[in-house]
Amino acid sequence: MAKVKKAPRPKAQTPKGFRDYFGPEVTERAEMLEAIAGVYHRYGFDALESSAVETVEALGKFLPDVDRPNEGVFAWQDEDESWMALRYDLTAPLARVYAQHRNDLPLPYRRYAMGPVWRNEKPGPGRFRQFYQCDADTVGAASVAADAEICAMLADTLEVVGIPRGDYLVRVNNRKVLNGVLETMGLEDDAQRDAVLRTIDKFDKVGEAGVRELLGKGRLDASGAYIDGVGLSDAQAEPVLNFVLSKKIVLDRIENELGGYKDNTTAEYERLAQVWSVERGPDRQGGLRHTLESGQILLRRTLGFLNELVGASDTGREGVQELREIADLLLAQGYGPDRIVIDPSVVRGLGYYTGPVFEAELTFEIFDEKGRKRQFGSVAGGGRYDDLVKRFTGQAVPATGVSIGVDRLLAALREKGRSGGTVQGPVVVTVMDRDRMADYQAMVAELRNAGIRAEVYLGNPKNFGNQLKYADKRSSPVAVIEGGDEKDRGVLQIKDLVLGAKLAESASLEEWKERPSQYEVARGDLVAKVREILNQWA
Amino acid sequence: MAKVKKAPRPKAQTPKGFRDYFGPEVTERAEMLEAIAGVYHRYGFDALESSAVETVEALGKFLPDVDRPNEGVFAWQDEDESWMALRYDLTAPLARVYAQHRNDLPLPYRRYAMGPVWRNEKPGPGRFRQFYQCDADTVGAASVAADAEICAMLADTLEVVGIPRGDYLVRVNNRKVLNGVLETMGLEDDAQRDAVLRTIDKFDKVGEAGVRELLGKGRLDASGAYIDGVGLSDAQAEPVLNFVLSKKIVLDRIENELGGYKDNTTAEYERLAQVWSVERGPDRQGGLRHTLESGQILLRRTLGFLNELVGASDTGREGVQELREIADLLLAQGYGPDRIVIDPSVVRGLGYYTGPVFEAELTFEIFDEKGRKRQFGSVAGGGRYDDLVKRFTGQAVPATGVSIGVDRLLAALREKGRSGGTVQGPVVVTVMDRDRMADYQAMVAELRNAGIRAEVYLGNPKNFGNQLKYADKRSSPVAVIEGGDEKDRGVLQIKDLVLGAKLAESASLEEWKERPSQYEVARGDLVAKVREILNQWA
Repeated sequence: MAKVKKAPRPKAQTPKGFRDYFGPEVTERAEMLEAIAGVYHRYGFDALESSAVETVEALGKFLPDVDRPNEGVFAWQDEDESWMALRYDLTAPLARVYAQHRNDLPLPYRRYAMGPVWRNEKPGPGRFRQFYQCDADTVGAASVAADAEICAMLADTLEVVGIPRGDYLVRVNNRKVLNGVLETMGLEDDAQRDAVLRTIDKFDKVGEAGVRELLGKGRLDASGAYIDGVGLSDAQAEPVLNFVLSKKIVLDRIENELGGYKDNTTAEYERLAQVWSVERGPDRQGGLRHTLESGQILLRRTLGFLNELVGASDTGREGVQELREIADLLLAQGYGPDRIVIDPSVVRGLGYYTGPVFEAELTFEIFDEKGRKRQFGSVAGGGRYDDLVKRFTGQAVPATGVSIGVDRLLAALREKGRSGGTVQGPVVVTVMDRDRMADYQAMVAELRNAGIRAEVYLGNPKNFGNQLKYADKRSSPVAVIEGGDEKDRGVLQIKDLVLGAKLAESASLEEWKERPSQYEVARGDLVAKVREILNQWA
Repeated sequence: MAKVKKAPRPKAQTPKGFRDYFGPEVTERAEMLEAIAGVYHRYGFDALESSAVETVEALGKFLPDVDRPNEGVFAWQDEDESWMALRYDLTAPLARVYAQHRNDLPLPYRRYAMGPVWRNEKPGPGRFRQFYQCDADTVGAASVAADAEICAMLADTLEVVGIPRGDYLVRVNNRKVLNGVLETMGLEDDAQRDAVLRTIDKFDKVGEAGVRELLGKGRLDASGAYIDGVGLSDAQAEPVLNFVLSKKIVLDRIENELGGYKDNTTAEYERLAQVWSVERGPDRQGGLRHTLESGQILLRRTLGFLNELVGASDTGREGVQELREIADLLLAQGYGPDRIVIDPSVVRGLGYYTGPVFEAELTFEIFDEKGRKRQFGSVAGGGRYDDLVKRFTGQAVPATGVSIGVDRLLAALREKGRSGGTVQGPVVVTVMDRDRMADYQAMVAELRNAGIRAEVYLGNPKNFGNQLKYADKRSSPVAVIEGGDEKDRGVLQIKDLVLGAKLAESASLEEWKERPSQYEVARGDLVAKVREILNQWA
């Protein structure tokens, strides 16, 4: 065989937009996924792990006009020229799995799935092309009881992973109410309706004034480009805006009513004042929550206002009724307005979902990159989508589900200092005498058999300082030393590295003397002494 | 917007060679990975999750002569025309990660990784294009103590996941011994040496006679094609064959010695007889294992024979010495020849690895597809590879590691009936009155809060039979029923579905009457009664 000319050295880096996760990043996520799976399991959901690779057709990402997949997915051709792609979410694969296996699956089919998804998008700071999703969906249940249950499960999940009650809120809206509003307006042009939906989705970004402009003639966006509007008249845009702003309007009305009271001691005044103080009072930043009573009042007022908006539209009235049922079902299970609320200002996803939509928000404040206070924001979202399976089978199958942004949730826990971000390193048995490796391995085996994380230093043992540096880099709590002298005397030196580090940081000379961080113990006391030190720092 | 012509319905199926995993398949694997991670952690290894997508160059799969990636990987071009691919194992990514982050990582770097890998190969029965690997590697440790430790960890891992001692054997060989044999033969042509290595790798497939032919002129393979041989003379091939067959030769010698004994009661005879009965005696199929003594004798004889084979070769002698050290280190930690043995008949991977190689075999017997008894075989393998990082940095970095075939290990546990393959279904609260969904949800919330897996039936409740069929399909242990009559009386009907199924299968009429499988309890006793039934079947 002729020698091949040497290829240039490859660069040691991930493709752009990808990254590696080390140690605690991996184990913390694994622990969170396990905790979430526990809740999903308790709610009766079964695990599903579909293949990471799908046909582009099954993903619905094939563009027949250009005979190529949508650029948003990572796709390639198989030997037989058919296109395959990495899944970009866990919902499209669920639809494929359900259509493929529906004869063998229970109906309704409740499944959860967790794993990476891939997006062929421009990466940015904190935006990667591979990330985790964690979904639970119920396929084949038309009842809003299925939606209510997902909301309850979402609240439970947040608490189980470490977000305490009061630090999150699940907010629920319904696409059908919006459909009712559009119906009442007589907006029947499909393209215009789609344009309205897309516009509303931008509310969180462009605000009330922006949406008003975009529903009308259009607006200059931040980059200076002019964005054409939907072309509604002011009168036409009004009901849509009223829907998006209904929470604000309801609260304005309550504020007005409160102003109109002469005698401030009626029970009705007290109740409305309670609503106002939670929503607009000076304390609301402090995490003041609705009580059962104030929540019920706000709910009644909100549903009443939505009924006004949808007028005689059957779809609209159905939507309002569904929201009422969801609130009732949740209340019956003990999920009050301190955890889950009906809130028409949830607009994200209204264009995608077909019925109830929900969003979980973390309500505590953090400082953003510019040092400004802001709420942490959304960590999960979902809703009802009744058309996904139809693509495959021709039959509409009702479905509802939620997707948790695991990486965002982990970031939130880190913000709150509820997640350590470190894993305790192993006890390191140092190598003083290369020829006695078997002795050191035996010590390590003893420690491991006692359930203690431990290892022998396996690098070049020549430089003892390197061994202690290694123990430091591994965040080792304890180092064990047995030189020839110790061996002869049947003893070990055991260094408490945590105490050692503390003393090095701050101790006075006297403390140094008083609190030695190194102990000489009999060889037979290895496990007992190490355990004693570990327990002290646990 | 013009309406787009409808695309034909996509087929609901995975690309060929891919599959989905449902319920217990997912959770069993997750539990196994968690158990394995626990052992790896205890040994001081840290988790690493590298990106699933790598540059083709980093994977070492770019073919410069055709300017395309090797066909064995799933690859595609990024926008900037650079090639990306799905990882095909976890070792190539480790080399890239280590080269990229080496300044921030401890030295030695001990990491474990678990996750799917992808192979663009022809799928076959039981051979998929996506499967799990579970690896642990130590990078930067030249000492064979690192190899010994991996072997010990492998043994611990097998026991932790449920393979009892006696049902597995970790076998260790060393590439350096083979290198020594080749050196002694004076085989200096690189191409011929490579050809010899590739030939030996086929030993498990073609056997002794096949390897003999392939080292010489060549042979007709099963398909009738003629495979050219390496072209060694018989005299040249002999040392290579002796290496591959050294275990057999050592045992033949022991057999001869035993035959030569006149007085059968010497201590030496007894010891050799013990070795013989484990390896060749009629009981060896019954799982007879080496004792410390018989194992040490076989080890001594084996190492002695290997020393004969490598003659004056330094590399060869070093290889034999390494095997001796590994055996000593393991013994010091309590891993005797009943679990880990030095065995020169391990040939798999000798062409790939550069030092010690190891393989974990399950030794119990199963029946193959044709109903013949055979040993289950290999579930993990590994060894020392000192060149991988060099591709990136130019510097050789010693590394050693192991890869566990998680799916094969799960299959083995299923074979042995040590893995259930079912997950207990949820308690199903049936819906007798659609308008009282809130009541049923409240029951379910009570059960869940008590830690009991439970759900309300969320399908169309009209047909009660469907609800019980659903409970059956979900393997539900208990169904709860509250119709209008029960509601009025403040009671519930609780059906023990496990007992019901047992009775339906086999009970006589009397047993039916004696052991009712349905109980009427007060509404307040819901949780207590359900728990009582569940405990009974736990």
